[in-house]
Amino acid sequence: MTRELHLNGFLKPGGTHLAGWRHPDAVPDAGVNLRYVTELVRTLEDARFDAIFIADLIAVPDSGDEVLSRVSVVNDGFEPITLLAALAAATSRIGLIATASTSYNEPYTLARAFASLDHLSGGRAGWNVVTSLVDAEARNFGLGEHLAHADRYARAREFFEVVTGLWDSFDDDAFTIDRASGRYFEQDALHSLDHRGERFRVAGPLNIARPPQGRPVIAQAGSSEDGRALAAEIGEVIFSAARDFETSLAFTTDIKERAVRAGRDPDQVLVLPALTAFVAPSRAQAEDEHRELAALLHPRVALADLEYFLGGVDLSANDLDGPLPVLPTSNQASRSGRELIIALAAQEGLTIRQLAERVSRSEEAVVGTPTDIADHIEEWFTAGAADGFNVAFPYLPTSLTRFTSLVVPELQRRGLFRTEYRGRTLRENLGLDRPRSRYAGATQGSTSTDTTRSEHTA
Amino acid sequence: MTRELHLNGFLKPGGTHLAGWRHPDAVPDAGVNLRYVTELVRTLEDARFDAIFIADLIAVPDSGDEVLSRVSVVNDGFEPITLLAALAAATSRIGLIATASTSYNEPYTLARAFASLDHLSGGRAGWNVVTSLVDAEARNFGLGEHLAHADRYARAREFFEVVTGLWDSFDDDAFTIDRASGRYFEQDALHSLDHRGERFRVAGPLNIARPPQGRPVIAQAGSSEDGRALAAEIGEVIFSAARDFETSLAFTTDIKERAVRAGRDPDQVLVLPALTAFVAPSRAQAEDEHRELAALLHPRVALADLEYFLGGVDLSANDLDGPLPVLPTSNQASRSGRELIIALAAQEGLTIRQLAERVSRSEEAVVGTPTDIADHIEEWFTAGAADGFNVAFPYLPTSLTRFTSLVVPELQRRGLFRTEYRGRTLRENLGLDRPRSRYAGATQGSTSTDTTRSEHTA
Repeated sequence: MTRELHLNGFLKPGGTHLAGWRHPDAVPDAGVNLRYVTELVRTLEDARFDAIFIADLIAVPDSGDEVLSRVSVVNDGFEPITLLAALAAATSRIGLIATASTSYNEPYTLARAFASLDHLSGGRAGWNVVTSLVDAEARNFGLGEHLAHADRYARAREFFEVVTGLWDSFDDDAFTIDRASGRYFEQDALHSLDHRGERFRVAGPLNIARPPQGRPVIAQAGSSEDGRALAAEIGEVIFSAARDFETSLAFTTDIKERAVRAGRDPDQVLVLPALTAFVAPSRAQAEDEHRELAALLHPRVALADLEYFLGGVDLSANDLDGPLPVLPTSNQASRSGRELIIALAAQEGLTIRQLAERVSRSEEAVVGTPTDIADHIEEWFTAGAADGFNVAFPYLPTSLTRFTSLVVPELQRRGLFRTEYRGRTLRENLGLDRPRSRYAGATQGSTSTDTTRSEHTA
Repeated sequence: MTRELHLNGFLKPGGTHLAGWRHPDAVPDAGVNLRYVTELVRTLEDARFDAIFIADLIAVPDSGDEVLSRVSVVNDGFEPITLLAALAAATSRIGLIATASTSYNEPYTLARAFASLDHLSGGRAGWNVVTSLVDAEARNFGLGEHLAHADRYARAREFFEVVTGLWDSFDDDAFTIDRASGRYFEQDALHSLDHRGERFRVAGPLNIARPPQGRPVIAQAGSSEDGRALAAEIGEVIFSAARDFETSLAFTTDIKERAVRAGRDPDQVLVLPALTAFVAPSRAQAEDEHRELAALLHPRVALADLEYFLGGVDLSANDLDGPLPVLPTSNQASRSGRELIIALAAQEGLTIRQLAERVSRSEEAVVGTPTDIADHIEEWFTAGAADGFNVAFPYLPTSLTRFTSLVVPELQRRGLFRTEYRGRTLRENLGLDRPRSRYAGATQGSTSTDTTRSEHTA
């Protein structure tokens, strides 16, 4: 089978750029306007995107009221799983991926919510497995600060073990529903997990049929050592923040090699780097629009954003026209973004103010014509630096409609992107195998309901 | 204003009768068939029902595989909040009420999910506040058994305090979204809860705008002493299991008197007893259908159901043709249903087998013509034994479509029930005031966005 390009829409109704909400095109109540969000997602579905992805933070960020009051993130907006459930009813083919934390949820609750979402959507759910690293989140759950890095990942692993175990509570063919005999399901098709681990004791079974996809698609975004290890073990869609070709090629190669070492088929691990595109009919227009948006960002917000990406450091006591101080080694912050930024400052000898500007200008953005963007996509995809892209829309609806109306047709003309969905489930469209239940015996044979692919024992 | 009758649809896709799934009309995969459930709810919306209500148990019931495999409850089906979010997108007027436990959730998570549901639905969310009392649930959350009765209610009170506090994190008019100045919200419109109680420490603020209804409608169903006290304090819609007129009149009167003592307007507390109706064009047909459904119930399931209503007792060692043994005083089981059943057994001198049959025959059901059902509703409503009904549908879709096509028109002919929705939000349709934020100062005046009613300070 030929390799397929995958496109995921990273949806923040206020735009991924911190000044996106100030753009004249923006819809004021975007974050809590279901009709508007539905329209955006239907546009992506009409363009045959594989999925949308909703990121999450379980708190109002801890950036001080002055900064907070200048960004739309505080109301951006719906809780992700409820939003995806609503979108499940309003769409029919596009995948629905949400972040949910392993740090502040209970595995039974989350297993049930995602199984429900998978049923509601007819097999289109995906779970981006994250560990939480912001103290503001910890304080909403009775803790003073978030868990240490290693603890977070140990908890994430056990959490994942419990959740996937619960999804297998009923065999695929458990519900025979024989009205005549009065037998609703076969007793040997029900399995109690009885998990007793270091961090969780969960009896099960889960009170819902096995998800249509066997399990929702598992996404992962860690790029620290622990994050990569987990991604290679469990991730099927890997979101990466790699900003340039070399970094992305190295990351993709590393993840696939790790997956092979973990006994997995590397084609079952799809790496999707972020792609922030400013696209317009002419290069000059795209560059103008890129500059115009950057100019809408308040300097205090730009600095706060830098502080956030550096792991919540406070730079207010530093000379903004001096260099970035040596930052204490953190094993708690999200390492990936942090290291990239520190490297950028060192390489180019930037002051704090210059660094904040550079980060805020979203220089990782690809700015140009539909041909420019398609070239970028084709180059990375063909060389194996990406299996597709996690497309971020800096301001809405324009960034999104430009991408679907200008870039997608160009990709389709080149034969790089589908013109019709391949299947009904997200797994089918991503070309991912349907996992077999852990209770499916060797003698049982395939229990797949997926007619397009053979099963793969995890 | 004249008193209005309220109708709530108690929706279990497999039917509320334990043998409902065996009825020839039943849809086999009802519990996880969104298209089917949506059709049912749209039928209720066309009939101008105030709301639907989804009950919940966070476990597969602990009734043994032999009984379990003969009932549809294990797959009945979607997780309630995700289901209601999907229905929010597929309906426009009907209220969406779900049970959610204060025992095994985190207040921040639940506050956020219900706020999101209220936004997704344009102000149609309701939360049935319950405490969990089934050991099978406790075992899914790391505990050996559920909390003691008094602890459960103390936790519920503090949980509720936190959740309602979080909903007020942003003032109603917080989001001024001034693109020109770059100010997204007014800093003094953001409030951190900083709750530090006996059971919870939650900093806040909640990361979503104040719900359109101020707070989702609060439902309650306790009828123990603690349950009634809580209902009178916080409940706006009270579901009751009262089976006869006298009990319901006494219960309704008691709840309203308690509400007055708690400083509340009794008209803001709506009592909706359960109504299980078997309705058909002729009384003979209705009775036949009632008998036919009862005959589909397996005797072992009937006994298990009795054991469940008695608080999880095991009667298997008792002579089924002997009397109900004296049961140990339980301060853990749901007291209401339990006491009614023990009283029934004593009054009529029933054996265990007879009692199980009686409970399973759903003798509380009203069986008859549309006129009979409307008479029942009119009598209870007019005398103040009910403000409306929580209508249970024993088997689907027939019990539901009979009710909407036969009973509702009769109620409308009598001028007892609306022919059009009064407002857009569930509060407006129920005639409930929109609660003011706890931070709204006396000088601030009304911050209501509800144009049909004045505000009421809780």
